[in-house]
Amino acid sequence: MSQALPRRVLVTEVGPRDGLQNERLPVPTEAKVAFVRALLAAGLRDIEVSSFVRPDLVPQLADAAEVFRALGPAPAGRTYGALVPNERGLEGALAAGVGKISVFTAASETFSQRNVNASIAESLTRFAPVARGARGAGKTLRGYVSTAVACPFEGPIAPAAVVDVVKRLLDLGCDEISVGDTIGAGTPGEVARLIEALLPSLRAERLVLHFHDTRGMAVANVLASLRLGVFRFDASAGGLGGCPFAHGAAGNLATEDLVFLLDGLNIEHGIDLEPLKAASAGLIAHVGHPLASRVHGAPALAHRAR
Amino acid sequence: MSQALPRRVLVTEVGPRDGLQNERLPVPTEAKVAFVRALLAAGLRDIEVSSFVRPDLVPQLADAAEVFRALGPAPAGRTYGALVPNERGLEGALAAGVGKISVFTAASETFSQRNVNASIAESLTRFAPVARGARGAGKTLRGYVSTAVACPFEGPIAPAAVVDVVKRLLDLGCDEISVGDTIGAGTPGEVARLIEALLPSLRAERLVLHFHDTRGMAVANVLASLRLGVFRFDASAGGLGGCPFAHGAAGNLATEDLVFLLDGLNIEHGIDLEPLKAASAGLIAHVGHPLASRVHGAPALAHRAR
Repeated sequence: MSQALPRRVLVTEVGPRDGLQNERLPVPTEAKVAFVRALLAAGLRDIEVSSFVRPDLVPQLADAAEVFRALGPAPAGRTYGALVPNERGLEGALAAGVGKISVFTAASETFSQRNVNASIAESLTRFAPVARGARGAGKTLRGYVSTAVACPFEGPIAPAAVVDVVKRLLDLGCDEISVGDTIGAGTPGEVARLIEALLPSLRAERLVLHFHDTRGMAVANVLASLRLGVFRFDASAGGLGGCPFAHGAAGNLATEDLVFLLDGLNIEHGIDLEPLKAASAGLIAHVGHPLASRVHGAPALAHRAR
Repeated sequence: MSQALPRRVLVTEVGPRDGLQNERLPVPTEAKVAFVRALLAAGLRDIEVSSFVRPDLVPQLADAAEVFRALGPAPAGRTYGALVPNERGLEGALAAGVGKISVFTAASETFSQRNVNASIAESLTRFAPVARGARGAGKTLRGYVSTAVACPFEGPIAPAAVVDVVKRLLDLGCDEISVGDTIGAGTPGEVARLIEALLPSLRAERLVLHFHDTRGMAVANVLASLRLGVFRFDASAGGLGGCPFAHGAAGNLATEDLVFLLDGLNIEHGIDLEPLKAASAGLIAHVGHPLASRVHGAPALAHRAR
């Protein structure tokens, strides 16, 4: 099932949302705004900026409206996204002028219950009006499927269960689906089986893989995905959301590490590594720990500078 | 050039030598001995235990003779190796009953000059009597080629330059060649080109890939190697020799991360992950920093326990 690697990869930067949501320390609003601007300067075109969720549940992102207000409209050809759990969240996102609306569910019933206190079916029912509203307002709609490889409570998740949830998200009108190995349990073995199960139902244009580097497999999982024709990935600048010396550090795939891989494979992505590293570096003082990205922590290679 | 993955992988554990040589703090002799015994218990069959080098140059391994004495002969079917820079080192290794003798050179002239104060040709001339002596004593002979992807001084290294050094090491009688991306500069792109250049001169049975995880590419590079038929890898328990929060941390590929990958690909290796993690954990107090291995730092997955 291996094929020529894609010539171009589309990266969705999720550091400001998924990364910062999983940091212990709150980051000041102005630092978030500067971070997003630095990401734009590094060439990122699709940035999930924040979440319109209950501030008591996710205090790290309680300033979503202020962040969007300070940023202003996304520059031409760029997209700002926001995660939205319900219709109230959608109202906030629409008022903020967000370009892409994301809803989220899981492939594991137990994880869904513990994470959003609803079954998968209930969570999808809850998203139906959000999806209608987002699409009615002309927004791009993204669906997240978490625990797509394994669940911390249930163990391995069958690819067929993921395909089932993906189909229901497509039925809700999702333009793209981000399929996530939330606990970083997968290797290229599990990931290849998952992708092979998904592609008959979901064209590669609409499939986004979302890896966590908990066990150091994220870059290898990207490589396995590329070989199956996948060309869209989520990544978090610096690997934000994880800490390199915390037990169970569960950071997203670091955008720097993804970019370094793609450069070595001569795959286009439009991102400049050194400005990206600078964007991430601006967060170190705020999150209070070194960044998890290996490429960020390593010396620049003169011959790989762009 | 992609093919079915190998069914079995042979791991050479280099943590006690390459790992500890690159740790700042000296590790007590008894801790090294306990480490090697724990590695044996975890299933490692081929362990590079130490170096017979000048103690003023590599004080971390000055106790090589004591370590081998305390260990006694390798159990049946297991091999203890040692790095040897010259005939004097060989004498020490032979007296210690070492089963495998390793010599080392580089693919970069500048690196060779700075590392061993000799050109590549001079270093090979110096190894000729060591190789003769080792083979005359019935020992397995390993050659290391460092900076096989890039050199910190020269930048990228042409695969042809690596092939040239490999051929000269084979002429010296090396049974196996460990080809190393010493500064962790390579991605699966560079690594695949290197392996494709090497395989016509060196059967996969004799080729060992030696990756450093400096930029988080080591596991992906293993995957790319496996797809080209490579089935021998060096790895360092815990990722010893690197530190997850030091700038420029240059640890070896962690044995735990390699094992986790191979388990996910259903490739046999004979190593048990939890006892391996226990072996590495015994070193944490001595090296004074968390281990670089992501798998070591992550919670065990119940469904992946062996």
